[in-house]
Amino acid sequence: MTSQKSDTAMSPKITGELLRLLRQAMRNCKFFSEPIQAYIVPSGDAHQSEYIAPCDCRREFICGFNGSAGTAIVTEQHAAMWTDGRYFLQASQQMDNNWTLMKMGLKETPSQEDWLISILPENSTVGVDPWIIAADQWKNMSRALTSAGHSLVAVQDNLIDAVWTDRPERPSTRLRTLGLEYTGISWQDKITALRGKMTKRKVTWFVATALDEIAWLFNLRGADIEYNPVFFAYAIVGMNTIRLFVDLKRLSDPALREHLQLDSPSKPELSVRTFPYESVYTELQAVCAALGPKDKVWICDKASCALTQVVPKSNRSPIPYTPLCLAKAVKNAAEIKGMKVAHIKDAVALCELFAWLEKEIPKGAVTEISAADKAEELRSQQKDFVGLSFPTISSVGPNGAIIHYRPLPETNRTLSMNEVYLIDSGAQYVDGTTDVTRTVHFGTPSAYEKECFTYVLKGHIAVSAAVFPNGTKGHLLDSFARAALWESGLDYLHGTGHGVGCFLNVHEGPCGISYKTFADEPLEAGMIVSDEPGYYEDGSFGIRIENVVLVVPAETKYNYRNRGSLTFEPLTLVPIQVKMMSTELLTQKERDWVNEYNRKCRDVIGAEMERQGRREALEWLSRETQPIV
Amino acid sequence: MTSQKSDTAMSPKITGELLRLLRQAMRNCKFFSEPIQAYIVPSGDAHQSEYIAPCDCRREFICGFNGSAGTAIVTEQHAAMWTDGRYFLQASQQMDNNWTLMKMGLKETPSQEDWLISILPENSTVGVDPWIIAADQWKNMSRALTSAGHSLVAVQDNLIDAVWTDRPERPSTRLRTLGLEYTGISWQDKITALRGKMTKRKVTWFVATALDEIAWLFNLRGADIEYNPVFFAYAIVGMNTIRLFVDLKRLSDPALREHLQLDSPSKPELSVRTFPYESVYTELQAVCAALGPKDKVWICDKASCALTQVVPKSNRSPIPYTPLCLAKAVKNAAEIKGMKVAHIKDAVALCELFAWLEKEIPKGAVTEISAADKAEELRSQQKDFVGLSFPTISSVGPNGAIIHYRPLPETNRTLSMNEVYLIDSGAQYVDGTTDVTRTVHFGTPSAYEKECFTYVLKGHIAVSAAVFPNGTKGHLLDSFARAALWESGLDYLHGTGHGVGCFLNVHEGPCGISYKTFADEPLEAGMIVSDEPGYYEDGSFGIRIENVVLVVPAETKYNYRNRGSLTFEPLTLVPIQVKMMSTELLTQKERDWVNEYNRKCRDVIGAEMERQGRREALEWLSRETQPIV
Repeated sequence: MTSQKSDTAMSPKITGELLRLLRQAMRNCKFFSEPIQAYIVPSGDAHQSEYIAPCDCRREFICGFNGSAGTAIVTEQHAAMWTDGRYFLQASQQMDNNWTLMKMGLKETPSQEDWLISILPENSTVGVDPWIIAADQWKNMSRALTSAGHSLVAVQDNLIDAVWTDRPERPSTRLRTLGLEYTGISWQDKITALRGKMTKRKVTWFVATALDEIAWLFNLRGADIEYNPVFFAYAIVGMNTIRLFVDLKRLSDPALREHLQLDSPSKPELSVRTFPYESVYTELQAVCAALGPKDKVWICDKASCALTQVVPKSNRSPIPYTPLCLAKAVKNAAEIKGMKVAHIKDAVALCELFAWLEKEIPKGAVTEISAADKAEELRSQQKDFVGLSFPTISSVGPNGAIIHYRPLPETNRTLSMNEVYLIDSGAQYVDGTTDVTRTVHFGTPSAYEKECFTYVLKGHIAVSAAVFPNGTKGHLLDSFARAALWESGLDYLHGTGHGVGCFLNVHEGPCGISYKTFADEPLEAGMIVSDEPGYYEDGSFGIRIENVVLVVPAETKYNYRNRGSLTFEPLTLVPIQVKMMSTELLTQKERDWVNEYNRKCRDVIGAEMERQGRREALEWLSRETQPIV
Repeated sequence: MTSQKSDTAMSPKITGELLRLLRQAMRNCKFFSEPIQAYIVPSGDAHQSEYIAPCDCRREFICGFNGSAGTAIVTEQHAAMWTDGRYFLQASQQMDNNWTLMKMGLKETPSQEDWLISILPENSTVGVDPWIIAADQWKNMSRALTSAGHSLVAVQDNLIDAVWTDRPERPSTRLRTLGLEYTGISWQDKITALRGKMTKRKVTWFVATALDEIAWLFNLRGADIEYNPVFFAYAIVGMNTIRLFVDLKRLSDPALREHLQLDSPSKPELSVRTFPYESVYTELQAVCAALGPKDKVWICDKASCALTQVVPKSNRSPIPYTPLCLAKAVKNAAEIKGMKVAHIKDAVALCELFAWLEKEIPKGAVTEISAADKAEELRSQQKDFVGLSFPTISSVGPNGAIIHYRPLPETNRTLSMNEVYLIDSGAQYVDGTTDVTRTVHFGTPSAYEKECFTYVLKGHIAVSAAVFPNGTKGHLLDSFARAALWESGLDYLHGTGHGVGCFLNVHEGPCGISYKTFADEPLEAGMIVSDEPGYYEDGSFGIRIENVVLVVPAETKYNYRNRGSLTFEPLTLVPIQVKMMSTELLTQKERDWVNEYNRKCRDVIGAEMERQGRREALEWLSRETQPIV
């Protein structure tokens, strides 16, 4: 796909009529015995995916805002949408006056529960589709509403779908099988390892609902959701059975049947029984009907409320992260090798882009969109390219301050010698997933732009070079990224890093680096996260410096209680622009880090460019990696 | 009191017979219909106090370990005790072979729930006294046990008390009234402010169970618990009524009756009705019997399970921190002024101690105990001294590595010119509470001791000088204190800081600086916390540098989104020993901080010494505050 895709706009969606229809549906007894006073529209799908297929973009449909995170709530009188700091500007531009933007993370912003309680008439009923609300969110919301005299009810028919006349079909793309050279472990061994963990915790069933976990478990990839090589499926794994729920039409491919050993399973307990996607509910009911009083079913807290409630509470063993999520996060040698190769190819393409931009910008014809397209074109020339890993953020000057900006024809700016350019982009290769942000200037940056860039760089280095004990959770590193900005009274309203999948979702759990104290798991060698502090000056410019980094053991002078230490190794190898730095604000250690990093880019990426015969990029690379003195 | 108090020992308590008696009680149907398979002994009292009266030291009685935090669990076959890194050494020395020490925070240590589940026979019953387990702990424990087929039951008669033949009486000391010059706000205004918050949250009743909150609310202090100027009480505040539950014998004091306006309340809604301490249960039952379906009762998650369960679940509005806890944490101008005065007096005493030690140590007759006694003697000479704020940690060489060490005759070491000396001490003055740790050497420290001290100092400075946005939670600053240690593979297994009360508990919520992501409240100007990183080399030495610091607004170059910034102002003003520093490891900024800090000590404390005519200490002070060059 190209970044010119314009199914969304930065001008507000007109929602008056839609809201009227939705409110009609809220009063319509076709859907429930009594009218509901509020309807919650979360942003996810039935798998609580972050990126979703067009048929699942219900929150976007009703309010116009198309960022990756946000919850809309509609009542008889009000319509409000909660999103986080990455999206404040974008949301305010995409929603019309019918909507109130609720800026999460600001002190004055009420939570959804508090807001509902403050505006609802007594004894109100609040509805939500139980498939698209996670069990833990349902629980919190239900508890808060109940304690205020209201109630939360599951509305089986989705009310957005009821008013969405031209809703697209659910996709069902061809499935791709991945061999051991990419995955390092066969799906059979992954099942065996999962069952080992189940035995250890005395669990008899495991319900997999997250699409990336199912793709990872079976060493399969799809293309049902743009940017995310996943496919719509559920899986239920018992000690002797494996049930896979997918669109059965997909199973005619002989390579796939062979991969899953559908026609000749090696062992009975590794035989995969396939069922239609929709039948997960009834099959899980059947499994649960046969449960003994002591049988435990593992289902993630983040699974849908609908599916979670099928499992009797006494049999439920809820977990914040599934064993698949944890196993997937720690990359094995084959995956690390693949990620390194993917990042080298990706860096070649991005360096080529910068070399091209340097030449083309003075001619005045490069725009945010054409730059993003060029980046995609250059990436697509690299071996095993599959597609982008998220919509390219290609932003000039003030557009850079819109954290998850995506250039559209009506917002498209021309790159110039006078404004900061921020490009956050990445791709899916069969061997790995990339995600990199560089902020550059093609003319002379202002002193203030350089100052802010340098604070962000200091934060980036502070995380990347951090040494910390084994067992440290990522959120404990978040403040390192902010200290230099904080000292000058600056900050950024997003987390510092997220887990990155291997030819999988560009955002994955259970590790990350964020000021939000979610229940992240401790960092371990082999985990891969991003390091991406930023600074955003509304109306002027945006700065972000992002590398994908691998958690590796660190050598330290001492070794307290034999715990061992960890640090990060950058996988992303694209030079950081020296021109943007106020080098006098850097310490000697920071200058050494920059020189060492840029030198490594020159050596590793230069060698690959040489191999690929990309002369112009090579010349650019050697110019851009001259050491700071 | 003096630090020679020897009701506890560092040699293990012999517990075989006690455990036999306890296990007998566990099987005895006098206490419950069926025998219980495990009994949990938490460390708190019915108010979930950290420091407790002798009559409440049940966990210490049964296992011998007398640290401030720890939970014992006894089953038919096993006896285990969980505590955190501060106490690993101490606990292993105080418990005999009947006990297994469970080191919390280490990866291999099971949680109490997991351990119980792993060893209990099927369908076991686990008992606990519902008064000394907090409601939130009960809930977690009960949920985990139930999900594994066991059950948690409330045992109304405490089984430790049943086997504790010489258990002391509950104290009932004289109450002290505090005037506006110390408290800044009358108790009547505090009640009115509390009711304002109740109205805002539509809450009709508030149950106060934490002793320091009740003392703060009524501007009263007691001496029921050593080091903590509190008294045993409960309070129930309604919109028009105030019920105070205390030993009624205490109410004969005319000054107290006048203070509480017991005989002539100014307004009916400010009339305090007094009840016997024990009647809180039945009175709360009476209050709850009259509740309407919409009436909400505020009770802290940390209140006892017994009292919490009196409130019907539908009327309960549980809160992680009470409004009193939050209000108490932000000190007003009178309290800040008092705390500053208290810290100046305290610094005079501590500097005098160091001057005295310098002179006396070469004579070879100063021990950990005599040094602690001298510190108390010097503090007691200061105006409005009430007592110590916790048992003095006076430790030489290897004893310093026992984080919450307390010198006893059998462990008492002599201070020398060859070993590191760590003293962590503090006092209660009528105007404020202090808590300070200094680590010093009276001869020549080794290069390694200096290196470790310098890493700890770098951490101390990194927190103290940190600038951070309004609304930042303290746990986000914890890693600043560790970065220098981590880089060399070192760490310490305790938090970096705790809230400090004003002539109240030396440890108080809801703010703190810790790697544990408890639900701490954001730091606000006026809050007071400690900054106390450390390093402990088992068998060799301990290092800790602790100041009490006040959260103050910070001036920054920019002001992102008008949020404003905060930083810390040290209230503790005792010089940090330059001799212990490897100054070449400090950055210029860190050296400037040390010089500025020691200069402030010289100016402020020097002036007070001058006023008090303490010549020798003044001379010591001016020697110890020479700038690093």
